[in-house]
Amino acid sequence: MSSLFLRTLREDPHDADVASHSWLLRAGYIRRAAPGIYSWLPLGLRVLAKIEAVVREEMAAAGAQEVHFPALLPREPYEATGRWSEYGPNLFRLKDRKGNDMLLAPTHEEMFTLLVGDMYSSYKELPLTLYQIQTKYRDEARPRAGLLRGREFVMKDAYSFDLDDDALEVSYQAQREAYERIFTRLGLEYVIVSATAGAMGGSKSEEFLHPSPIGEDTFVRSAGGYAANVEAVSTPAPPARDASGIPAAVVRDTPDSTTIDTLVEAANSTFPREDRPWGASDMLKNVVFALVHPDGRRELLAIGLPGNRDVDPKRLEAAMYPAEVEPTTEDDMEAHPELIPGYIGPEVLSPNSETGIRYLLDPRVVDGTEWVTGANEEGRHVAHLVKGRDFNADGVIDVANVLEGDPAPDGSGPLELARGIEIGHVFALGRKYSEALGLKVLDQNGKAVTVTMGSYGVGVSRAVAAVAEATHDEIGLCWPRALAPADVHLVATGKDQAVFEHAEALVGQLEAEGLSVIYDDRVKVSPGVKFKDAELLGVPTIVVVGKGLEQGTIEIKDRRSGERREVAVDDAVAEVVAETRR
Amino acid sequence: MSSLFLRTLREDPHDADVASHSWLLRAGYIRRAAPGIYSWLPLGLRVLAKIEAVVREEMAAAGAQEVHFPALLPREPYEATGRWSEYGPNLFRLKDRKGNDMLLAPTHEEMFTLLVGDMYSSYKELPLTLYQIQTKYRDEARPRAGLLRGREFVMKDAYSFDLDDDALEVSYQAQREAYERIFTRLGLEYVIVSATAGAMGGSKSEEFLHPSPIGEDTFVRSAGGYAANVEAVSTPAPPARDASGIPAAVVRDTPDSTTIDTLVEAANSTFPREDRPWGASDMLKNVVFALVHPDGRRELLAIGLPGNRDVDPKRLEAAMYPAEVEPTTEDDMEAHPELIPGYIGPEVLSPNSETGIRYLLDPRVVDGTEWVTGANEEGRHVAHLVKGRDFNADGVIDVANVLEGDPAPDGSGPLELARGIEIGHVFALGRKYSEALGLKVLDQNGKAVTVTMGSYGVGVSRAVAAVAEATHDEIGLCWPRALAPADVHLVATGKDQAVFEHAEALVGQLEAEGLSVIYDDRVKVSPGVKFKDAELLGVPTIVVVGKGLEQGTIEIKDRRSGERREVAVDDAVAEVVAETRR
Repeated sequence: MSSLFLRTLREDPHDADVASHSWLLRAGYIRRAAPGIYSWLPLGLRVLAKIEAVVREEMAAAGAQEVHFPALLPREPYEATGRWSEYGPNLFRLKDRKGNDMLLAPTHEEMFTLLVGDMYSSYKELPLTLYQIQTKYRDEARPRAGLLRGREFVMKDAYSFDLDDDALEVSYQAQREAYERIFTRLGLEYVIVSATAGAMGGSKSEEFLHPSPIGEDTFVRSAGGYAANVEAVSTPAPPARDASGIPAAVVRDTPDSTTIDTLVEAANSTFPREDRPWGASDMLKNVVFALVHPDGRRELLAIGLPGNRDVDPKRLEAAMYPAEVEPTTEDDMEAHPELIPGYIGPEVLSPNSETGIRYLLDPRVVDGTEWVTGANEEGRHVAHLVKGRDFNADGVIDVANVLEGDPAPDGSGPLELARGIEIGHVFALGRKYSEALGLKVLDQNGKAVTVTMGSYGVGVSRAVAAVAEATHDEIGLCWPRALAPADVHLVATGKDQAVFEHAEALVGQLEAEGLSVIYDDRVKVSPGVKFKDAELLGVPTIVVVGKGLEQGTIEIKDRRSGERREVAVDDAVAEVVAETRR
Repeated sequence: MSSLFLRTLREDPHDADVASHSWLLRAGYIRRAAPGIYSWLPLGLRVLAKIEAVVREEMAAAGAQEVHFPALLPREPYEATGRWSEYGPNLFRLKDRKGNDMLLAPTHEEMFTLLVGDMYSSYKELPLTLYQIQTKYRDEARPRAGLLRGREFVMKDAYSFDLDDDALEVSYQAQREAYERIFTRLGLEYVIVSATAGAMGGSKSEEFLHPSPIGEDTFVRSAGGYAANVEAVSTPAPPARDASGIPAAVVRDTPDSTTIDTLVEAANSTFPREDRPWGASDMLKNVVFALVHPDGRRELLAIGLPGNRDVDPKRLEAAMYPAEVEPTTEDDMEAHPELIPGYIGPEVLSPNSETGIRYLLDPRVVDGTEWVTGANEEGRHVAHLVKGRDFNADGVIDVANVLEGDPAPDGSGPLELARGIEIGHVFALGRKYSEALGLKVLDQNGKAVTVTMGSYGVGVSRAVAAVAEATHDEIGLCWPRALAPADVHLVATGKDQAVFEHAEALVGQLEAEGLSVIYDDRVKVSPGVKFKDAELLGVPTIVVVGKGLEQGTIEIKDRRSGERREVAVDDAVAEVVAETRR
């Protein structure tokens, strides 16, 4: 510790927004170099290397071969698949000295596809799974939570190549099982959820989410086993209803009722229902967004949904990909004076209307359902408006927020909501990349067949933070034994030269047993500071050589439980070794 | 081999300009992804990892601690040291989504300086040496020779931090010695030569050059022990001469004498010397270049040197850094009609002349020396022009090419010239970076002292190519045992099922002995192709299980010598193990 490149911090750094970020900074594992970009200090790098080693072992066990691609790549392959533009501002783009467009790769589907096409030509060479552990780049709009969402990060990305869909399924399952082993070994609890494919394209995709209140992903699960990222939940449409008994639509005065709450109140006081009070779910809320398409085109989009729900931004983003979603601006609204904020109704929406704005409805808004909704006049709403009888739209969009207790789409019971950190993602890509880049092999009959692919990612640097987040306590980091930067943190206390000599000898004996040791040999530092640092760094076993030495004992302390016991000096090596093998 | 991601090529790839590049491509170790940017295939990655492991071991032995910095960095620190502009077009620059300037780091002096300043504050924390093994970027104008000069490459870069120059010298020597051990372990012959500091700045710098005819660096050495990169050779100025007996300058007709050769011929035929014929070294050659300064300013520069020498472009580049040197354009010449190509003389040069062009002279052009040189008129030269009597200049520049037999500057004898590949570079930086970025610590007396630094680089990916270049033969790669992608290449030949079963069992036994084996289990591939592939891949020990098996023997072949011997099946494991430990 007297020479280790380390400086621990007593206070929470002001820029740390989650506990793992704060502890990793305070314990000197990482340092911020730029927003979302971090340097690894010696202890952090050791943990990262241990995670990489686990990933490598499990990739090899799953038959994947390691390669390594450049991070700096030419534009052309990404142009061929459309991702050069689809990635929008998330892609770091640059020009080389000759003016060629280049990029810093966020993932490498294109390059792997080209390489395999360049090297392989026959079905006999398949199946093939390749992987790399590599630094990746993504220009996040809002980097946050330290290593959890950075702009430069380490990923393991694997790619499978198969002749047909059945073989892809086998490759996909092999990676999926490898991921289960990896996260089990890392001690990271996970839930496998259905996911949307997003920028990757492809048919089937699942995420490995580590449940955590600070996670950016919201997922749902049912007691019956359904689990999905909230972006991937599909809402079953109820059957159409018979609307024959519903009175004709009627416009009502609803002054100052621009929110669902005030509208419900106004409805109940001015035109109450007989059977029950009006509720938010009787109202049809119409929300207008702006879409920015990859080619720069701006389009307004209106979404109609029951008043007790909101549009979920991440579900909307996933549904609209590759277009980006923005709130409407004053300019947008000025261009459409027909849109009266708080009073927007179906009449002025859809391409055949006066505004020409595309209008999509939540799946629950089926034919025969009756709504209170905007009358497109300041201070007025319309009641008894029936879908299919009085209004229609351009289609359906399933982007309303999922609520606790909503039914699982597979009928497996009510959903519960939770948050998670995405630690892995598996995609059955199918032929999106192989078709775009012409990856074919000859099959058994000599016929050229387009290869089918999968891609599989593990957030390696993110896993460091996820483990720290899951295992820290209120006094510092608290690593699982398999990932700790050392096996033992040995503290020598006091000023007695004999203590330091004994401690140093013990370090040598422990190292001879194959243990790695962080040795706190600092002479002018108080025992209290040394203990605090040991707790902060989070090595699972803390050994104290100090005043007990005169009585022939040293102390062994378990970092997590805080339990401590005195052992005889003569038994020290055996006891410490046993402790680290528990 | 039936599943290894590999495809060997029978022919030299057309874009390979040196042997190592060709063999690494043909043997499936690397693939080109873009100009100067390569992907690592499984075998190449294994060699790279072995070199990295050697570097890590020797860095740890030298007391350096490993960290890891981002490759994508903000502009500001590089602006503070001037390197943002000094690097010119060699730096990959980009903007993030918020418009911030960023760069892909070619080296990390700035970031290490800032980090240490951020974490350390006392002399007690020094000395400190940190290193990383990291992907680096340099937008080379002319990437060449595969991994030898790429635009994305792997480097080990270390940085030392000391309180004073004596301590820096200790850190510098520790790294220098670590480099000697590294290159010895890699089996790479090296010469340590004095070098110029170039973009790094600093006081003292040495290069580790691997002598090779394809090397980009030219170096000189004397029998007496002088060794320097040709860019760093200094030419001692001879003493001034007495010019009192030299006749007055006289202009002579020298039609069609725009080169030194034709001028010598014209001089000897029209105005011959009495004592001896005119030679090239009697002529003063004046060459004009354009300098482009980092701020974009363009300036012409004239250099006068003896006619038997040329301006060495790399020496000129090093001397002019950070300005870039370009040939003059037609526009440059049109702007200066006084410059008559082939007849340029001192009279029109230097700031006080009609052109105002800066004029620098080779150190050999001392006061009292007599020259034939351009008369600034078409078809005319001037003879008996004496430096100091008839012309002067703005200074001295030592950029003439060094010739075999030139005296070593330290008087240690005549120089011989050779070429080398730069595999390592050590710099005593001094305080350039710590001053620019304010890195100070408190010394023993509580006084703030600017830290002195060193930086030390090893070209890790370049070393793969350098070793391949040094060890290949006419049939393929031929790795030293410590770096080979496997210990044994085991070939099973024929169609006999028993052979393959026996071979597979042998692979298992060898792996149980801790050896790594490439097993050629391909069934429909001829023995000839298998042997050729084994020779191409370059694993040092080749084992053949084939038709000898019936007689109870297998064959062990040494890849380098080609020697082969039969050993009894029962002794096979022991014999192969012994072979790999030789």
